[in-house]
Amino acid sequence: MRADIAVLPGDGIGPEVTAAAVAVLQAVAHRFRHAFDFAPHDIGGIAIDRHGDPLPPSTLAACRRADAVLLGAVGGPQWSDPNARVRPEQGLLALRKGLGLYANLRPVRPHPATLGAAPIKAHLLSGVDLVVVRELTGGIYFGEKTRSADGASDLCSYSVAEIERVVRRACVLARLRRGHVTSVDKANVLETSRLWREVAARIARDEFPDVTLEHQLVDSMAMHLLSKPRAYDVIVTENMFGDILTDEASMLAGSMGLLPSASLGDGRSGAPTHCPIDSACAAERPAMDGRAGVSASRESDARDGRRQTTMGLYEPIHGSAPDIAGRGIANPVGAILSGALLLRHSLGLEAEAACVEQAVAATLEAGVFSADLAPNGRAAGTGEVADAVIERITAISRVPE
Amino acid sequence: MRADIAVLPGDGIGPEVTAAAVAVLQAVAHRFRHAFDFAPHDIGGIAIDRHGDPLPPSTLAACRRADAVLLGAVGGPQWSDPNARVRPEQGLLALRKGLGLYANLRPVRPHPATLGAAPIKAHLLSGVDLVVVRELTGGIYFGEKTRSADGASDLCSYSVAEIERVVRRACVLARLRRGHVTSVDKANVLETSRLWREVAARIARDEFPDVTLEHQLVDSMAMHLLSKPRAYDVIVTENMFGDILTDEASMLAGSMGLLPSASLGDGRSGAPTHCPIDSACAAERPAMDGRAGVSASRESDARDGRRQTTMGLYEPIHGSAPDIAGRGIANPVGAILSGALLLRHSLGLEAEAACVEQAVAATLEAGVFSADLAPNGRAAGTGEVADAVIERITAISRVPE
Ligand SMILES: CC(C)[C@H](C(=O)O)[C@@H](O)C(=O)O
Ligand SMILES: CC(C)[C@H](C(=O)O)[C@@H](O)C(=O)O
Repeated sequence: MRADIAVLPGDGIGPEVTAAAVAVLQAVAHRFRHAFDFAPHDIGGIAIDRHGDPLPPSTLAACRRADAVLLGAVGGPQWSDPNARVRPEQGLLALRKGLGLYANLRPVRPHPATLGAAPIKAHLLSGVDLVVVRELTGGIYFGEKTRSADGASDLCSYSVAEIERVVRRACVLARLRRGHVTSVDKANVLETSRLWREVAARIARDEFPDVTLEHQLVDSMAMHLLSKPRAYDVIVTENMFGDILTDEASMLAGSMGLLPSASLGDGRSGAPTHCPIDSACAAERPAMDGRAGVSASRESDARDGRRQTTMGLYEPIHGSAPDIAGRGIANPVGAILSGALLLRHSLGLEAEAACVEQAVAATLEAGVFSADLAPNGRAAGTGEVADAVIERITAISRVPE
Repeated sequence: MRADIAVLPGDGIGPEVTAAAVAVLQAVAHRFRHAFDFAPHDIGGIAIDRHGDPLPPSTLAACRRADAVLLGAVGGPQWSDPNARVRPEQGLLALRKGLGLYANLRPVRPHPATLGAAPIKAHLLSGVDLVVVRELTGGIYFGEKTRSADGASDLCSYSVAEIERVVRRACVLARLRRGHVTSVDKANVLETSRLWREVAARIARDEFPDVTLEHQLVDSMAMHLLSKPRAYDVIVTENMFGDILTDEASMLAGSMGLLPSASLGDGRSGAPTHCPIDSACAAERPAMDGRAGVSASRESDARDGRRQTTMGLYEPIHGSAPDIAGRGIANPVGAILSGALLLRHSLGLEAEAACVEQAVAATLEAGVFSADLAPNGRAAGTGEVADAVIERITAISRVPE
């Protein structure tokens, strides 16, 4: 297939890890006979420097036209003056919002080879395989903010519709997995959380009788994520809680540098349509709200010989790590695995996605670790890790479904 | 000395663990020749059942009159109908607010004997000794809440004065410890956090040049708390972040059942006066804002032959654990150590506090564990653990200062 991928390297180690991910995707294209086009665009601090805007209109427009977006990271000390009019993070938030990407999937599946680097005891980690579905375009991130001489405020608000769509997404994902959803809130204190709990319970009961739903308070979740991580399958929560819990969950994997993410919406129209968790879903399951299952995808693509694609934004969950930027030592695995999620969720290329994941696993198994995973041993550079993955992609002859 | 202690057992395992803590405090009174009076009052679910109010006015009034308050836990499934007009947690929140207890201290110092129960690798935990100072009467917990057919909202707001006083508290505490404060916020997204960061930086720079202050984003804190817990001394943060981070931090100790907390204000008047972190502080340091250092304390006590006391609320950080309530198996250590904090912070009885802490340490060292710490071994009941602590309090002949 042909696909246009917008690449937003951003700041700090962003350019290094996206370069590694692009190299891997190019190897995939070569091996599986696809044609991927990669077009770079500015976002974050570098976009402030070049355009005076952390999300220049040209970048947003290019992302809207693309089949998928691959992003590095944004931010850095030179742009973090609290009194600055614009901040790099605003670019990322505006992009998520502008593309309607309300569901942020953060899978955590610790690899046996990297358990040594995790602060959590290894016996708790074997078999851990969870995905956090974080609501990404609502909550306190996007509510009205005020500032006066005496104080400041941030409004956290959620509409019923915002909760419904992300909970649906989590339930659909759970169906493709082990069928269990844990909805996280603070319903004993927050009104938004009481609404969240009600809506989650109703959606699960009325639309997903085959999925089991459990409610958990966010404080207790922060604890159980560590004490019994195997108990979780899909965890769905609001924006701020998801931000905190996914960074915490990254410690199950050994290094935050290993973890990818996918941010998904309902496709190009912005209207809720079908389950876009992955292409298998639309084919195997009835559309969950009774509407047609394909209108969100790029129908014109079908006409010009492409497969249908679903817009998504793919980024490692780590930040811009300014302290190690430019030294070629950043862990590219989170970015590379984000590329795998891009293949799966936006392009519907499951075999290709699995191939990348397998190659990464084989690379880790071979002990090719970046400095975050091998603090005292011989560490591989960003490029070496990418090369090792590419070598294995090229070598893997039969790709299991 | 004589002291009146209001006891609020609350719900679930609350009555069991407070009974254990009271027994221990009685042993302390006997051994050190004090006269403590314990008066029980209703709060939470049981107060709803008996008075139709999770914080009956009589309970609040009794707490205001007392020298200190010892609380168990509130809440349970029978009171958690989301549509209920009143909820047990409201009683606790109203009590914290009503007594002006804006600084919640949650010390975490893993004991060598319980590291086996922690999900964190033991080598990361030796030497960990941190205190989270959580802002307790502001933020999204107490902001305006709205609900409509379409959605809901919670307002998070902070005044400059609210941030100043809790940051001061954290800095004073740090002076008595290793002199390092980590202020946690989400300044790259929230306006309240940007204000928090500014105010924290100013207070530290202008008033505590001897304390080092570091800022950390809450998501990254959730990670570093696990990967390098030894790096932290005092962590200060807003209400919601503190709620999540302290439950997470409890996993460093092995079981949430081990952890105590102290909630402190500025004393009886409610006006900010002196540093009440502990009695040593007022004696050793100049009052931080230049005002007199004692007006917050109960001056009348001096006249009737008592030492001065400072109001505080002491509670284990665990919840009401309805699943194990009434079975005599709950871990009373968090409640007992809360009693030690009461002796230290409200009554100024440092030697007595240290004695309790020493007795608890010796009990754990002897392998007397409740079921949460000894899931497969022979577990001691709530009363047995308390008895073991009391035995050691009685036996300890010389109490180190
Ligand atoms: C950079 C920041 C705005 C962002 C967020 O809080 O969403 C980051 O922490 C993340 O998790 O992607
Ligand atoms: C019971 C609940 C309201 C409370 C809180 O969130 O403050 C509890 O979780 C705590 O940490 O003391």
